[in-house]
Amino acid sequence: MEKPFPTDHPVHELLRRRWSPRAFDPHRRVPPEAIASLLEAARIAPSCFNEQPWRFLVFDGEDAEALERARDCLVPGNAAWARRAPMLILSVAQERWSRDGTPDRWGQHDVGLSTASLLLQATALGLAAHAMGGFDADRARRSFGIPDGFTPMAMIAVGYFGDVETLEPKQKAQELAPRQRKSMDGIVFHGAWDRPYRLEAREEPTSR
Amino acid sequence: MEKPFPTDHPVHELLRRRWSPRAFDPHRRVPPEAIASLLEAARIAPSCFNEQPWRFLVFDGEDAEALERARDCLVPGNAAWARRAPMLILSVAQERWSRDGTPDRWGQHDVGLSTASLLLQATALGLAAHAMGGFDADRARRSFGIPDGFTPMAMIAVGYFGDVETLEPKQKAQELAPRQRKSMDGIVFHGAWDRPYRLEAREEPTSR
Repeated sequence: MEKPFPTDHPVHELLRRRWSPRAFDPHRRVPPEAIASLLEAARIAPSCFNEQPWRFLVFDGEDAEALERARDCLVPGNAAWARRAPMLILSVAQERWSRDGTPDRWGQHDVGLSTASLLLQATALGLAAHAMGGFDADRARRSFGIPDGFTPMAMIAVGYFGDVETLEPKQKAQELAPRQRKSMDGIVFHGAWDRPYRLEAREEPTSR
Repeated sequence: MEKPFPTDHPVHELLRRRWSPRAFDPHRRVPPEAIASLLEAARIAPSCFNEQPWRFLVFDGEDAEALERARDCLVPGNAAWARRAPMLILSVAQERWSRDGTPDRWGQHDVGLSTASLLLQATALGLAAHAMGGFDADRARRSFGIPDGFTPMAMIAVGYFGDVETLEPKQKAQELAPRQRKSMDGIVFHGAWDRPYRLEAREEPTSR
């Protein structure tokens, strides 16, 4: 299943097609070459001072017990569907600069940059990938030995698209509902906070 | 100029071609339709609970004085080259959930997700885009009226690629130097912290 975003302005198809689905095929594992491409995409993302404050813990099912412990970190609402994904990846942010140990205020932001790259590579490979904040970060820290100075950010379910009919009713409804975002004027300002950016007007030839 | 990343594993060309250049063409402005596509790409990014905690302040040169004040926020090392970009976009993170005002610990992370989408749409349009942490966030807050509860994250220079020869020697050297990232084993672990993920071994058919 695909659900490309119905954009108001042209956007590259890879960005439009990226989507966070819930229906995964539990029987189809992600090949190692694909996993390597996902992580490579994450690796080449930009970061402040090229710090690369991201770490990724991979639960690919080779170690079935580790995957199960990762699934056990999910909140119930996510576990209901994400347990069917054949693998999980946990993103983790380094909180301090390598060079001097002072706080890196872009650490979590840059993990977001890197994770976007991973999610888009999944789209490119025809994979379903869904990043979740809804997991127990403290439990993940304990379960996997994540040291102080690093913060678990997102649990990412990865796999192939599955049958929507396997979802519980509420999640099936979410899966099939239209995609929603704020309108542009709620997130974009022109030169000062709350000053509107009139995209439409500026697109008329007479306004140039 | 392009400088695609020499990846060790296949990665979609849009992700490979994204790059943070310094040489901008100061005479070529970004058309309004392209700006709309950049912001649309940012708008459709994923976020925790679909909060969309991102805001973007656009300094496109229509208001020359606002653009100049945005440039004045850059640290000298960035200003040296980024002043030549015809526009800047400032990304800002909302720190609290809209629904109840409690802290959203994914706010900055999700701005990173959204910014990655913007940067990749720039790549798709043949634009140069370079996100910078090196700017005075407090000055930006005062200059543009950014309220409490929101944090300036990145100043993003956007424009067309320019002549590398216009850069100062140090920046010209950076522009032409090979791209560097940590190796995969520095950022990827398998099922537990510091447990190596052996991509190469797993790619051999006998290991499947």
